[in-house]
Amino acid sequence: MPAADPHVHGARVSRVRGHLADAGLDALLVTHLPNLTYLTGLQASAGCVLVTARGLRLVVDFRYAEAGRAAVHGLGGGASLEVAARSLDEAVAARLRQAECRRLGIEAAYLSVKRLDWLRGALGEGETEIVSTERLVERERLVKGPEEIAALREGGRRLSTVARNLGPLVRAGRTEREIAADIDHAVRLAGFERSAFETIVASGPRSALPHARPECRVLGAGDPVVLDFGGVYDGYCVDLTRTVSVGAPEPGVRRLHEAVFQAQQAALAAVRPGVTATAVDQAAREALAGHGLADAFGHGTGHGLGLEVHEEPRVGRPLSGQTAETLAPGMVFTVEPGVYVAGVGGVRIEDDILVTADGYELLTDAPRSLLVV
Amino acid sequence: MPAADPHVHGARVSRVRGHLADAGLDALLVTHLPNLTYLTGLQASAGCVLVTARGLRLVVDFRYAEAGRAAVHGLGGGASLEVAARSLDEAVAARLRQAECRRLGIEAAYLSVKRLDWLRGALGEGETEIVSTERLVERERLVKGPEEIAALREGGRRLSTVARNLGPLVRAGRTEREIAADIDHAVRLAGFERSAFETIVASGPRSALPHARPECRVLGAGDPVVLDFGGVYDGYCVDLTRTVSVGAPEPGVRRLHEAVFQAQQAALAAVRPGVTATAVDQAAREALAGHGLADAFGHGTGHGLGLEVHEEPRVGRPLSGQTAETLAPGMVFTVEPGVYVAGVGGVRIEDDILVTADGYELLTDAPRSLLVV
Repeated sequence: MPAADPHVHGARVSRVRGHLADAGLDALLVTHLPNLTYLTGLQASAGCVLVTARGLRLVVDFRYAEAGRAAVHGLGGGASLEVAARSLDEAVAARLRQAECRRLGIEAAYLSVKRLDWLRGALGEGETEIVSTERLVERERLVKGPEEIAALREGGRRLSTVARNLGPLVRAGRTEREIAADIDHAVRLAGFERSAFETIVASGPRSALPHARPECRVLGAGDPVVLDFGGVYDGYCVDLTRTVSVGAPEPGVRRLHEAVFQAQQAALAAVRPGVTATAVDQAAREALAGHGLADAFGHGTGHGLGLEVHEEPRVGRPLSGQTAETLAPGMVFTVEPGVYVAGVGGVRIEDDILVTADGYELLTDAPRSLLVV
Repeated sequence: MPAADPHVHGARVSRVRGHLADAGLDALLVTHLPNLTYLTGLQASAGCVLVTARGLRLVVDFRYAEAGRAAVHGLGGGASLEVAARSLDEAVAARLRQAECRRLGIEAAYLSVKRLDWLRGALGEGETEIVSTERLVERERLVKGPEEIAALREGGRRLSTVARNLGPLVRAGRTEREIAADIDHAVRLAGFERSAFETIVASGPRSALPHARPECRVLGAGDPVVLDFGGVYDGYCVDLTRTVSVGAPEPGVRRLHEAVFQAQQAALAAVRPGVTATAVDQAAREALAGHGLADAFGHGTGHGLGLEVHEEPRVGRPLSGQTAETLAPGMVFTVEPGVYVAGVGGVRIEDDILVTADGYELLTDAPRSLLVV
């Protein structure tokens, strides 16, 4: 990930400041680490950011002193660093007392009750009102900028190469865990910083479990095998699934595969700016219903990709009380219908796409037919 | 990980019930997933547990329906499962309203403000008092039971084998990332479910950064290389560090290594029941001070190991307002002094130990001298 840049990260901070003003906040305490990375370019396992109308204070521990200095230097005017002598929250509280902050926004989904209780005590009754906020940074992350798209495109290209070389790894007699270890190794050798999540290798009857962890099960002839893996490239997550068959597949597995392939094509065909994410999900769902598989598709059609492997937009059925996201150019998400039938098996096909001005661009590409190994 | 067992998991639940009674709580909502695993045996990426005076309600989503059923079956009387039709928290709230819970404990360090706000709204004003709790389950996890020790011992044995075979992986001309990918692959082939954390390979000047992520830096002659890696075996985490030299080390690196080796020996010699974790840290610190390296040791001497790779006991300097843990048989933690000197390099040596009736047992064992490759 490149260092902070005033034209990239500084502009992001400015947009978030606009949301602060709209919400009548004097400051926002950013504790969700992907949001911290988005605003400052710093990748850290601990740290927080205090965004105010004119300033940005990055607070880290001694481990990130050097990286933190580089980040605030890159952000330019108004950004400063504090290497916390004790806890991050003590440094934040001291800063807030100095700044006479009347209304402080917190990221309610990403701050623990314990930290809130502590901050309340430290800031004193009545001095600072602490206000729960949601999505003040996430809403900016929804549409990717050019530098983010470049990372996702390169990540997608590299993950596709891994996908095109899966065949030799999947053989009768090997265990799910051995194959998962080899896929993770291949992901790393393809230039990824790490796997984006725990690789899924689900074989035979276990393929019918949508989120199976690799076990010591040994692959046998006729097994369908769902392989779902991802990588983090330059800080950005990509994600891909293919289903292969160990030897000749049962006719039932081939039928499931054909139905899922059609569902993915239908979902992709629905993608363009102005439609809702729900409409994309619905297209996959209707295609599967046409095969009598409506009930075999137990998850959503996709999820956003970026600094997190699951982020907005949510490509699924609408949640109660929530409006489905309307697609816009620059959004990046997976399209991954799957069906899971006890006694037959499971099939999932997943690719990553970028919404463009008039449709979509595939970020991942590898044969989608049922690979027989 | 074996299925839930009334003699193991049931007994853990009973002990936690004792803490509920002490705290005057009608129920405890367990949302920290390692605590859920500890109480039920279920390993899941989502779920929660409601512990009451006589019952236990495990709430999962559709993905864990089958595994959840096995868990509550193993727990025996009083345990029941709910596969949440909508959100986990909606299922919990409905249950709490039925149960007429007056005082509900939450795990304040592991529940978000957003979820607390939602629960407050769902439970209604004045009906249920929500009380922040800490460590009601974690305090039980501090001393390991026989089945936990068995997993940690086997994990330590396997990780030691990986450590004894590091030599061929570390060569001039290879990058940190290639070596990290190979170590992770070796960890998996040694029978671990996954790496316990992101493997550290920090070479040359980067060895002086205690928590460096592997980069594309190419190893060269004379580089010290810190290799810190771990694995999850049967759900339990083990963790090991060795420092190697690519070709003949600089005399400064050799001196650092000797000092750290002595500090680790001093810390190990201090381990026995009845002493504080701080005394173990102090022993390492004094040994390094004897070499004029007091300021080069910027982290604690160790951390507990178990279902999490960082858990209690904390083996470091006392935190303000907290009492240091007194060691007891069955505690498991790392002993990992390290020194980091800009311009010279960094050295860390880490092993895992079990506190026994009269001292300690090494769970990891591989040569601790400076390996020259």
